[in-house]
Amino acid sequence: MFKKILIANRGEIALRIIRTCREMGIKTVAVYSTADRDSLHVRFADEAVCIGPPPSRQSYLSIPNIISAAEITNADAIHPGYGFLSENAEFSRICAEYGIKFIGATAEQINFMGDKSTAKATMKAAGVPVIPGSEGLLESVEEGKELAKGIGYPVIVKATAGGGGRGMRIIKDESEFQKAWDDAKMESGAAFGNDGLYLEKFVEEPRHIEIQVVGDQYGTVCHLSERDCSIQRRHQKLVEETPSPIVSPELRERMGEAAIRGASAIAYEGAGTIEFLVDKYGEFYFMEMNTRIQVEHPITEEVTDFDLIKEQIKVAAGERISGQNYSPKLYAMECRINAEDPANGFRPSPGKITQLHFPGGHGVRIDSHVYAGYTIPPNYDSMIAKVIVSGQSREEVTTRMKRALQEFVIEGIKTTIPFHIRLMDDAGFQSGMFTTKYLETFDFSGL
Amino acid sequence: MFKKILIANRGEIALRIIRTCREMGIKTVAVYSTADRDSLHVRFADEAVCIGPPPSRQSYLSIPNIISAAEITNADAIHPGYGFLSENAEFSRICAEYGIKFIGATAEQINFMGDKSTAKATMKAAGVPVIPGSEGLLESVEEGKELAKGIGYPVIVKATAGGGGRGMRIIKDESEFQKAWDDAKMESGAAFGNDGLYLEKFVEEPRHIEIQVVGDQYGTVCHLSERDCSIQRRHQKLVEETPSPIVSPELRERMGEAAIRGASAIAYEGAGTIEFLVDKYGEFYFMEMNTRIQVEHPITEEVTDFDLIKEQIKVAAGERISGQNYSPKLYAMECRINAEDPANGFRPSPGKITQLHFPGGHGVRIDSHVYAGYTIPPNYDSMIAKVIVSGQSREEVTTRMKRALQEFVIEGIKTTIPFHIRLMDDAGFQSGMFTTKYLETFDFSGL
Repeated sequence: MFKKILIANRGEIALRIIRTCREMGIKTVAVYSTADRDSLHVRFADEAVCIGPPPSRQSYLSIPNIISAAEITNADAIHPGYGFLSENAEFSRICAEYGIKFIGATAEQINFMGDKSTAKATMKAAGVPVIPGSEGLLESVEEGKELAKGIGYPVIVKATAGGGGRGMRIIKDESEFQKAWDDAKMESGAAFGNDGLYLEKFVEEPRHIEIQVVGDQYGTVCHLSERDCSIQRRHQKLVEETPSPIVSPELRERMGEAAIRGASAIAYEGAGTIEFLVDKYGEFYFMEMNTRIQVEHPITEEVTDFDLIKEQIKVAAGERISGQNYSPKLYAMECRINAEDPANGFRPSPGKITQLHFPGGHGVRIDSHVYAGYTIPPNYDSMIAKVIVSGQSREEVTTRMKRALQEFVIEGIKTTIPFHIRLMDDAGFQSGMFTTKYLETFDFSGL
Repeated sequence: MFKKILIANRGEIALRIIRTCREMGIKTVAVYSTADRDSLHVRFADEAVCIGPPPSRQSYLSIPNIISAAEITNADAIHPGYGFLSENAEFSRICAEYGIKFIGATAEQINFMGDKSTAKATMKAAGVPVIPGSEGLLESVEEGKELAKGIGYPVIVKATAGGGGRGMRIIKDESEFQKAWDDAKMESGAAFGNDGLYLEKFVEEPRHIEIQVVGDQYGTVCHLSERDCSIQRRHQKLVEETPSPIVSPELRERMGEAAIRGASAIAYEGAGTIEFLVDKYGEFYFMEMNTRIQVEHPITEEVTDFDLIKEQIKVAAGERISGQNYSPKLYAMECRINAEDPANGFRPSPGKITQLHFPGGHGVRIDSHVYAGYTIPPNYDSMIAKVIVSGQSREEVTTRMKRALQEFVIEGIKTTIPFHIRLMDDAGFQSGMFTTKYLETFDFSGL
């Protein structure tokens, strides 16, 4: 087992990793930027090394500075957390070169999954469902119609140069094809000076559902069920839960098997997540694989009792996993508490926390790096706490989450807590029937 | 279901009950003494009524004041927590008289279990093992020897007027009987002016192990396994855990069945606990029944996923339970954090908490009513927080507990945290092999 792990990260995830290392009797090295001198991860680590000033490329993204810190402190492994260098193939490769174990994927695995088209081709070859569509650009309306016939309607044509919904048309049946084609071509030509179009199956009422996998160094991969992350604002996850309200045991088994096939295809080692879109018919399609621990990993821990950071460290150290899969024994939900003003477009609200009290009691877990008197620097992401709640039913979890949210006392800054409270009271959310677009029409006023 | 519950208590248990009521959509009324104006339970309840000054008999023990508060606020039920009026038969009776549901045992059940000799006789009749011994005082050495022969050695003779170990002798075999008898008689006559002796089986290497039961109003009783509370100082529990390191599934089943027989014998309704002594041979003996929720109930919640306060409220409102028993699915442990100085005989250390930070993360639960800036009044018990930790093994729980204990920041007062950290590191504690006497020889110096 490792003697000393350097944590190449900051904030709650750095603290999260320190906690597990302490429980495993492994020494820890924190690295920090000059903006993070007063951070709890610095206080709780056994050693701490300053690696430069903000912005991140001069500190948390500086490979030479981090490798130096590991060398100086004799760390035999590095845990990258999420974000920053966690999916940087070059960093993984350099760690290996220096004989420091990178607690994450190999450079090859990261590269495989980092490039979207390579990842999609790899997954397709492994028998993981991907969104069917054209290989590259369509040559003609006729080619498009032919393809759509095979895939089945609805389909969507998209401008290759597009974005923000422009040059994009949903087509419900063949009679609409010609007009949609012409409109999309004209719009994309005018907007982007490029009228190339490609075609994909249109995923109806999509939900973001991901499968947690763990693989060891001997080719064994297991899954730990799904997380439903459909509650998003501008592709940022705000609330995650497990089990998903729409995943049946049968769908869980199919998705879990697909995720294992995908991870096995690249001999994946460590903890990883395969993200899928699931449509209203229960069909699922590969989106991407994250070759690292995720922000929302605690909900999986709450329902399976695993410590996923411990699992990462164990498999990185060469331990074997049993290969058994795990279904949720409970319900769990996470709300990300950000220092943002939800009534004003979620504008960041850094500054000093003058008063702080966290909720507690049965079924409530807090992962946070902040404390009373702490000043949130403006340089990094705005998440200040994760509240993770577990219980015997989705209804119990929702009411418990609301209770916990109401117990927070955070003064000096704005937070997203009022949004989360409103969401817990929202009938649509309570029904469990929502898509990734749910927050597009949510009422944020007066929060 | 109840619309409004008055909580006739203070501190962490009052907050604990408020939390569950909020999750159930039940309004709450806090009562408080003038010493508790700034308590969190007052802040978090929907309404709060001042019921008088300290000491407790003028406020938390004043039945008229509490009934008045319930009448004024139209509460339809009262939850008494633990301590104070929770096992007061008169209070239970008066609540019933006023048409306010007492969330606890009936006056009859409380009386049955409040009187030790009645309780013992009832349990014995129900087939629950009790410590065998003489019925009342022994007339002669010969009667004692005869009885000891039937019970089996070792036995103990005790002064009926005794206490503190005086007038007490352990007898290993019949050859020692006469001398022990004479010594105990002389000692108790000299010390208490009363040389009456009785005899009991001597419980060797006793552990305090209790069974949590829940009964409904229709005669169904189930058990939720054991809690091992052997780590005590002067009969005060300091650490509790479940499962017990010495309870096998077979012993759990036997103890659980005995507890159910005992509770069923008095048609017990609500949550209750049957406390047993277990000797080194795995024989168990009834000590007493607590007809209320206990301080250490959260460890049972962590390993069974039940919310015991919710169960109490549900059965009080007339709901049925399934009658299924529950075994621990995990390991859990609780440390009671007291405002006491463990290096100075656990002397109370009330005062203002100037800085406060609680531990968090995976498997850590905090139940506490204190906050930064709160002044602990000198009038009440000194418990300021319960840390409850859960995990997949006893070893994981012990290391996690140590990690959590080390994360606490509490400034301005002394606490028992240093004792708990030393205990987690202690080889004897880690072995799981300890008796209720373990702390008598524990090294508290330099904490």
